[in-house]
Amino acid sequence: MANITKKVSWSSRGDEGTPLLNGSETRRHSKESSAGGAVFQIGRLSTVDLEEEMMSDEDSVRGRPKEIPHNEKLLSLKYESLDYDNIENQLFLEEERRMSYMGFRCLEISRWVVCGLIGFLTGLIACFIDIVVEQLAGIKYQVVKENIERFTEVGGLSISLILWAVLNSIFVMVGAIIVAFFEPIAAGSGIPQIKCYLNGVKIPRVVRLKTLVVKVCGVICSVVGGLAVGKEGPMIHSGAVVAAGVSQGRSTSLKRDFKIFEYFRRDTEKRDFVSAGAAAGVSAAFGAPVGGVLFSLEEGASFWNQMLTWRIFFASMISTFTLNFFLSIYHKNPGDLSNPGLINFGRFENDSVAYYLYEIPLFIAMGAIGGLLGALFNVLNYWLTIFRIRYVHRPCLQVMEAMLVAAVTATVSFTMIYFSDDCQPLGPEHTEEYPLQLFCADGEYNSMATAFFNTPERSVRSLFHNQPGSYNPLTLGVFTLTYFFLACWTYGLTVSAGVFIPSLLIGAAWGRLCGILLATISATGSIWADPGKYALIGAAAQLGGIVRMTLSLTVILVEATGNVTYGLPIMLVLMTAKIVGDYFVEGLYDIHIKLQSIPFLHWEAPATSHWLTAREVMSSPVTCLNKVEKVGTIVDTLSNTSTNHNGFPVVVQGASSEEPAKLCGLILRSQLIVLLKHKVFVELARSRLTQRKLQLKDFRDAYPRFPPIQSIHVSQDERECMMDLSEFMTATPYTVPQDTSLPRVFKLVRALGLRHLVVVDDENRVVGLVTRKDLARYHLGKHGLEELQLAQT
Amino acid sequence: MANITKKVSWSSRGDEGTPLLNGSETRRHSKESSAGGAVFQIGRLSTVDLEEEMMSDEDSVRGRPKEIPHNEKLLSLKYESLDYDNIENQLFLEEERRMSYMGFRCLEISRWVVCGLIGFLTGLIACFIDIVVEQLAGIKYQVVKENIERFTEVGGLSISLILWAVLNSIFVMVGAIIVAFFEPIAAGSGIPQIKCYLNGVKIPRVVRLKTLVVKVCGVICSVVGGLAVGKEGPMIHSGAVVAAGVSQGRSTSLKRDFKIFEYFRRDTEKRDFVSAGAAAGVSAAFGAPVGGVLFSLEEGASFWNQMLTWRIFFASMISTFTLNFFLSIYHKNPGDLSNPGLINFGRFENDSVAYYLYEIPLFIAMGAIGGLLGALFNVLNYWLTIFRIRYVHRPCLQVMEAMLVAAVTATVSFTMIYFSDDCQPLGPEHTEEYPLQLFCADGEYNSMATAFFNTPERSVRSLFHNQPGSYNPLTLGVFTLTYFFLACWTYGLTVSAGVFIPSLLIGAAWGRLCGILLATISATGSIWADPGKYALIGAAAQLGGIVRMTLSLTVILVEATGNVTYGLPIMLVLMTAKIVGDYFVEGLYDIHIKLQSIPFLHWEAPATSHWLTAREVMSSPVTCLNKVEKVGTIVDTLSNTSTNHNGFPVVVQGASSEEPAKLCGLILRSQLIVLLKHKVFVELARSRLTQRKLQLKDFRDAYPRFPPIQSIHVSQDERECMMDLSEFMTATPYTVPQDTSLPRVFKLVRALGLRHLVVVDDENRVVGLVTRKDLARYHLGKHGLEELQLAQT
Repeated sequence: MANITKKVSWSSRGDEGTPLLNGSETRRHSKESSAGGAVFQIGRLSTVDLEEEMMSDEDSVRGRPKEIPHNEKLLSLKYESLDYDNIENQLFLEEERRMSYMGFRCLEISRWVVCGLIGFLTGLIACFIDIVVEQLAGIKYQVVKENIERFTEVGGLSISLILWAVLNSIFVMVGAIIVAFFEPIAAGSGIPQIKCYLNGVKIPRVVRLKTLVVKVCGVICSVVGGLAVGKEGPMIHSGAVVAAGVSQGRSTSLKRDFKIFEYFRRDTEKRDFVSAGAAAGVSAAFGAPVGGVLFSLEEGASFWNQMLTWRIFFASMISTFTLNFFLSIYHKNPGDLSNPGLINFGRFENDSVAYYLYEIPLFIAMGAIGGLLGALFNVLNYWLTIFRIRYVHRPCLQVMEAMLVAAVTATVSFTMIYFSDDCQPLGPEHTEEYPLQLFCADGEYNSMATAFFNTPERSVRSLFHNQPGSYNPLTLGVFTLTYFFLACWTYGLTVSAGVFIPSLLIGAAWGRLCGILLATISATGSIWADPGKYALIGAAAQLGGIVRMTLSLTVILVEATGNVTYGLPIMLVLMTAKIVGDYFVEGLYDIHIKLQSIPFLHWEAPATSHWLTAREVMSSPVTCLNKVEKVGTIVDTLSNTSTNHNGFPVVVQGASSEEPAKLCGLILRSQLIVLLKHKVFVELARSRLTQRKLQLKDFRDAYPRFPPIQSIHVSQDERECMMDLSEFMTATPYTVPQDTSLPRVFKLVRALGLRHLVVVDDENRVVGLVTRKDLARYHLGKHGLEELQLAQT
Repeated sequence: MANITKKVSWSSRGDEGTPLLNGSETRRHSKESSAGGAVFQIGRLSTVDLEEEMMSDEDSVRGRPKEIPHNEKLLSLKYESLDYDNIENQLFLEEERRMSYMGFRCLEISRWVVCGLIGFLTGLIACFIDIVVEQLAGIKYQVVKENIERFTEVGGLSISLILWAVLNSIFVMVGAIIVAFFEPIAAGSGIPQIKCYLNGVKIPRVVRLKTLVVKVCGVICSVVGGLAVGKEGPMIHSGAVVAAGVSQGRSTSLKRDFKIFEYFRRDTEKRDFVSAGAAAGVSAAFGAPVGGVLFSLEEGASFWNQMLTWRIFFASMISTFTLNFFLSIYHKNPGDLSNPGLINFGRFENDSVAYYLYEIPLFIAMGAIGGLLGALFNVLNYWLTIFRIRYVHRPCLQVMEAMLVAAVTATVSFTMIYFSDDCQPLGPEHTEEYPLQLFCADGEYNSMATAFFNTPERSVRSLFHNQPGSYNPLTLGVFTLTYFFLACWTYGLTVSAGVFIPSLLIGAAWGRLCGILLATISATGSIWADPGKYALIGAAAQLGGIVRMTLSLTVILVEATGNVTYGLPIMLVLMTAKIVGDYFVEGLYDIHIKLQSIPFLHWEAPATSHWLTAREVMSSPVTCLNKVEKVGTIVDTLSNTSTNHNGFPVVVQGASSEEPAKLCGLILRSQLIVLLKHKVFVELARSRLTQRKLQLKDFRDAYPRFPPIQSIHVSQDERECMMDLSEFMTATPYTVPQDTSLPRVFKLVRALGLRHLVVVDDENRVVGLVTRKDLARYHLGKHGLEELQLAQT
């Protein structure tokens, strides 16, 4: 029914950087089988739309260069799944049975303790970043401001410009160097990576201590360096790393094992904690604990568990609280906890909080504009990313690009300030910390300078709250335009930085512009069209148009404004922005996930995939092991780099030899490695009866960095020994019959977070194995169901 | 390992009121098998704790009367599961395959349309209830007030008392009569019922149109009747009924079929819409769209699906919006949408919104008080409910009790107003609509009267917002005490009414009292201890202590206050209240669910249940059908009232007769009924080749009220015919091996919302069937894992 290319391998070990399959060979193979096209048509359309298909192929050949190593039409074999399903072998069951009710209570309590710790540490990190950024940026602005003021009257402002550009470039250079040379995974906001992790994809090195350190330093450098970035996105990544570290009770990087929380050393528990960490990060960044929980759930949890949700909520709460508490001390107002979050939209408390029915269409229109601008942003950034992948892949080039952007940002800002003649009176209650007089009269300040001469967070707040009339429409228009392109260029640089704040800033600027225009064109305008309100709506529209989150983003924004009244308009705006934006292109994070060919599982199987059954989707043939297997066979199987499987169904032969082998379990590569390392052979067990029985602890100690098979020495004698797997395999793996439809298989895998799903026939014989890549391959394209190629990139 | 009573039947048809098993026989059987004890110990404790077990049994015999038909140690066989798993038979797959991508898009759009309709209608209903209650209550208060004022000076206030009591009783009588005689399921808030429905339990008649009508009229009567109840809880039930009705595109009660939304006529889709309806209800009641979504998810959705969440969110949004819009017109302020929800806590906008670190311990202490008071409330209500089940089960008794409560409420209120000497000056900006002067000086009003002489919603708002000094501490104390017992007595009456508002009112009263006391004892008190703030915290604590929701309740309260600042304190308070309360007794809704012996599945299997395997948990032997089965056999199987199964594994015999039969599908009673009704027999198909093929439509038309088997006439000749089930059965049922541990089985059933899970052996032969009751039986009691008895009550 569907023309499907049989795959030879369904999983790779995902060891960092090791090319396990000959890359060119794979490509050749896939080229042969795909007959030159990058996209397969499946089902009924395959015959009808042949011509169109060919055309779209040609398009892609013409439009995009062929050599792009990362491509959204490929699916990388580099990425492994997390095992969200517990390994229920005899050891595990024995441990669980040995545990008393009190034991489970203690475990539960330690889960809460870990979540508390995660929240606390995440809050501290946010606090640290905030204070350091504020101090460093303060010094920088002071220096540049004084310099400009010195040269304003005597002339020679070009020196100020150079000073500013150099200062920015130096900061950005430091940030880019540590990212590019030490930990490239720390680049960007980290949200796509965390999204994938929560989805169940193991992204190498994403939750390591080194990544955290680089991330924190990197984000400080890029924000202080004046790039069009925010420090909020990286907080989510930071929280996740903290969670992955704390919950394991040890640090592999620091070689310290505190011998605590050993029970949590498996993917199931770790992923739960990482959800909590991500939520704590959101919570610290935006002062939005509920938004954080929703973010984690929207991105990650497939199965909603009430207790887990509460723990996530607790971590979020502690995180905001910690940040709040320490910042209140820093701001010399100890104990006042009413202003949470790294970014604070300030309180909307005046009479302008009210909105009227006739404003709803305006809001929806603004949502549509946000969707359009967001789609434009994403398309531009997509092409830029393609360009970067092709031409800017060497670390030193990446550092130079980042420095260039920093210098350009400074120059553009300076030019705009220089040519701006938008002077505003300096009121007694002015909120600007570094008002720049420049060519304005005494007692006035340059309002364009305010927008650039400030951390973006403060600029957003000014746009929301400054009195009507604080900004000149032309200033806002030019600022929007400039900042839009700067932010678009900046996202994807090899620096740690987020896109939330720039998006909000762009949106706030054009939103305020809309408000001003509306107030101008309507007679009684100034009463209802409070520009601050429209700035908020614009900010929501722009952010929604770029990232395309809805529920969690609504809550985050509502929590950040501290006012529920705007809940409904924000929702409407975000929904409109998403609908409009989705018409053109996907969300920014999804684009970047696709460009990295990560096998991301969506919520449901593609709508028209009932045509496919498990038989067509699965990988086969499957390498099975016997319940009692020869060591040599196991070593050979594990060492086979051309198959490189990760999970092996265990079968048992019938009494007579012609009876077929039945499925009786599933064992993972990591388990076999530990067994080989400890030489758990039947012969040895017989001879050395006193030998310590292998325990769960041995598996936990090896988690998560199991050694490669090459590092384990097995002698020729030992190769002849037998291994009894029955105690270690998951005795009751989930199975599906081979006629199961793809949506049904998908639902099972997605809901339970499975890594391997065994496909069996009527007689319980293994016929195939379904993994993440088998499911992620299928997606709905423009011409119906499409199949992505698998590649070893 | 575990001493488990083998059950004979695992499911009943759940037809309303038909005693399919002889009740006395069942009881005798269960008594025999349980050897007199109501509770089984499972696992290791079974031998050790025998003595204690016996004692606890004796306790239960002594403490509780034996004859209680409803008991929390039983599990009723009356309740069926919903099928959240799609019936993936050939017909279904063919339909899905026939559908184009555009078809799926249209379906998706119609889902959004349905959700919009659900939101709109729910909002309208909320609006209707609100306006009618306000009008009727206004008339009542006016009449009573004028009467009291007339008699205050001339004496003879007892006439006023009688007038008041009689007025209340009449309203309540009407409300109680329609509930008790027409639709008993409409009693109470409906939240436990909706919780169960979302959990996957089919509660008979819970989502019918008649229930909705009775609910709406009932809640109006009970609120106008002055009972200590709110109109918010019933909104959730109303929303759910609206959803179940609208999504099916027809009304079975009204015998109208609009021939639309036929695709949604199955449990999977219906349950999703009911989630949306419940969310819309919450949203309309509290003006809390996000809270509504979280409520639905917390209570219902096992599998978090982003698209579903968005639709739920949309329904919630529309619901608030509709209510808002119509109420703004009613309140002569059209277009102002800033004050959503039936209950509105008013805006907290003064400087008192700030809170300080040293207040946190106070908040937590208040949370603990709330937990204690909540537990007390629940324990009292538990005993009251037991009493009601035993002695007040006849409808006329129930009506009389409701009238009694109404009269007592009026009397107590009147007495308290009469003896209160708490006069407050009547300010120019007073918020009381019916200030009662009584014995106060001119220009003053009786403040106790304010609390009673008002809808509870207004009283709550007064407690939150009135100026410090508006209430006398003694007044508040006496009010709290009285209202606490009144509310406790009222919950569980045979009237439609919610417990949210009374809880909030009790909490707000003692919370405000705390605030006043704190302000008194501290020197600089009046600055920080704003009584309104403490009233809010108290309200949260009390409500949390009674219902024990956390995440959704936090969001609901935050949205109702319209201010995010209190988010953190509210969270802390709710968590504390839950922890403290859970130490003593479960939440109010869970108590009522248990007392009705509903097989409710919690989030996870009990912690210490790894001892149990599918083999021990499952029901066996299972009645299996052949792929091509004799009609007579099918009719006999379906008519067998002693087994009364709902799902039948379909097996296929091997080629030789000694080969074992393999599982090849699963078919439901409802499907077989439809097949029998349409006489889909192999012989007939051969003879009448032109006969119309049975389509999915036929199954959908019969959904959800499939006729009983007794109503289908099968002649003796037809009994000899054969039926081919292969086209209609789910060909790929989910299975587990018999050694699977209970938590693993539980996870599969819970995550996928299964109704039947087939247990197979190594050779894919059916050995048992696991259903909801098999899993819900096990729960963690005081002495470890306990097993509930199954009963035909």
